[in-house]
Formats: sequence, structure tokens, C-alpha cells
Amino acid sequence: MNIRTDSREKMIKAASRLFQMQGYHATGLNEILKKSDAPKGSLYYYFPKGKEELALAAIGLASDIIQSKIRASLSVYADPILAIQNVIRDMEKAIKKDGKLENVSLSLLSLETYLSSETLREACRKSFIELEKIYAEKLRESGIFPQSAQNLGMVIQAMIEGAITISITKKDTTTLAAVAEQIAVIIKPYKTT
Amino acid sequence: MNIRTDSREKMIKAASRLFQMQGYHATGLNEILKKSDAPKGSLYYYFPKGKEELALAAIGLASDIIQSKIRASLSVYADPILAIQNVIRDMEKAIKKDGKLENVSLSLLSLETYLSSETLREACRKSFIELEKIYAEKLRESGIFPQSAQNLGMVIQAMIEGAITISITKKDTTTLAAVAEQIAVIIKPYKTT
Repeated sequence: MNIRTDSREKMIKAASRLFQMQGYHATGLNEILKKSDAPKGSLYYYFPKGKEELALAAIGLASDIIQSKIRASLSVYADPILAIQNVIRDMEKAIKKDGKLENVSLSLLSLETYLSSETLREACRKSFIELEKIYAEKLRESGIFPQSAQNLGMVIQAMIEGAITISITKKDTTTLAAVAEQIAVIIKPYKTT
Repeated sequence: MNIRTDSREKMIKAASRLFQMQGYHATGLNEILKKSDAPKGSLYYYFPKGKEELALAAIGLASDIIQSKIRASLSVYADPILAIQNVIRDMEKAIKKDGKLENVSLSLLSLETYLSSETLREACRKSFIELEKIYAEKLRESGIFPQSAQNLGMVIQAMIEGAITISITKKDTTTLAAVAEQIAVIIKPYKTT
């Protein structure tokens, strides 16, 4: 990685972290530059369109990390119920550890920007759909029909997304735990084995 | 209602609307004053602690409206499955109508403030718990055991909250519809009649 790419990556990393924690509107470009140790002029060099363009890259990075974390948690079990409960358990651990939402959920960024930026809304939309697909794929692998798997994937993603928001607000993960328990109830009727 | 109370109410209404739509950080006090037609000096007269105090009142107002909307939708059916599906259908209609989230969800305000304001986090926490209780009460009324009703209330609230965030991001309410369908699946095992 050369110095130029390095500066760009550092800015995206810092932006992703700050946008996810504090929010898009609460985070200024100066703060991102400061945290990323990047030279002052470099922001508009790499991101000529400014904050929105940087946020697009930041959402892309966060989305990739969230996806790979979920895939890793899912891969521990072949059984989709155990696998998805494992994803939720790992999220509970992450939230309990630092009480923050870095690389766990894009809900904040999405809700902050869906009305004001089509570009960022679209990036969040794609990310949500990717997660639904990851759950649906796991369900299909266990023999659940594609249409059922797709619907269940959508519901599972919604349950988890909502439970994350509520758990972080409550500073307690009982909602995530209650959702994990119901995962078994909603998947069982569709299981073939 | 006298003029003084009226100014205060107008400010809270305008703040509630703007905070829910644009977010807490994206909304300035001047914008709230402008939208509420309140005299410039009146903000710190009614809310000496400023933005946070106004936001606390705004969250209280939004929370009351959300609760009464949900109670009204629930009251249409005695059967808890049909009643909760009716709540979701009404939310789908609201989202389809204007593609915005006024008096539908506190997720944005909660995610924006949980790290920076204990006062606002606590207000959002209480509101989330109230909604869980409303669903749980409906389930208990149909004969479901209190402990099961409480857990299901928590899960239903999470599913709906997550589905709202995703639906508004997708500009399509299929996630809410998929959640409505699964409501039947998760409640049925606990139903006594």
C-alpha cells in the first residue's frame, strides 16, 4: 500500500468509525481529518464531492465488515437456527463489550440520510439487502425453499436490526436474547430435516 | 390554552417533527423557532437548558402519539395476531403515504443520542419499554402467560422497529409485510384459544 492509498484508507476508516458512533450530522470533516492523521488538503483530493462521497466509502467499508462478521458467525454451525443464534450471541458480546455500535448496524446512518441523500440511502439499502441474502442463503443450504428462505431472511434481518437499536438504547441485551430464542420458532416450520 | 402555553406547545411540536425527520444533530434551534412561529427569546424562557431539554419534551410528545396510534390499531381486533398485524398494516400505510417517519419510530433519535445524552437515551428507553408493554398486555388479554407475553412483546417490538428502518430505507414495505406474516407464527404456539 503506498502513502497515497494509505491516507485515503485512513480517512475512510476514521469517517466510518465516527459516522457510525456519533452519526453523520454530528461528525465534521475536521474531526475526521484529525482522527485520520491525514494532511488537511487531502480530503478534497480524494473525495472531491466532500462529506457525502466520504460517507459513501465509509458505508461501503462498514457494510463489508458487518457482512464478513456475520458470515464468520454463521459458518460455525451447519444448522441455520444454531448459526443465526450464534450471530446474535456475537452481537450481544460486541454490544456488552463497549456499548457502542461500530460495525454492527447501519441503522443510524440510514435513518439520518434516507431523506437527504439518495446516494447514501441507496448504499444503506444495498447493505440491508445483502444481509437478508446472507441469512436466506444459510436457510436455503439447509433445504428450505428459496421463496420461504427469502422471506425469513428479511424477517430475521429486521428482528436483529430492531433488537440492536433497542438493546443499545436499554444498555441491556435481553431483547437480542429474546429474538435469538424466537429464531428457532420462526425457522422450525420450514425446516425439512 | 393561553398564549404562553401555546408557544411552548408549538415549539415542542415543531421540534418533535424536525428531530424525527431530519435528526437531532441536523436540526438547529433557529429552524425550530422559525417553524413554530415562536418569538426568538421564548426558547430559553421555556427550555432554559436548551436543545436537550426541548428534545426531551419532543420525545415525550412523539412517544405519546406513537403509543396512542398503536393502541388504536390494536383495539380494532380482539385476537392478538390480527390486532398486531393491523398495527403493522397501519404503519405500512403511513410509510407509503409520505415516505417519512413522523410519529412512527424513535429509532433515529435514540441512535443519535444514546452515547451523548443519558437524559435522551433514558427517554427513548422508556418509550421502547412502553411499546413492549402494550404488545405484551394485548397478548396477556388473550390468555397468554405473563412471562411469555413479556418476551413476545419484546420480540414483536424489535421486529417492527427493525422493519420500519429497513422499509423506509428501501422505500418499499415488503419487510413490514413479511414481519406481519411471521407475527402469526411466533404467537400461535403460545395461544390458549
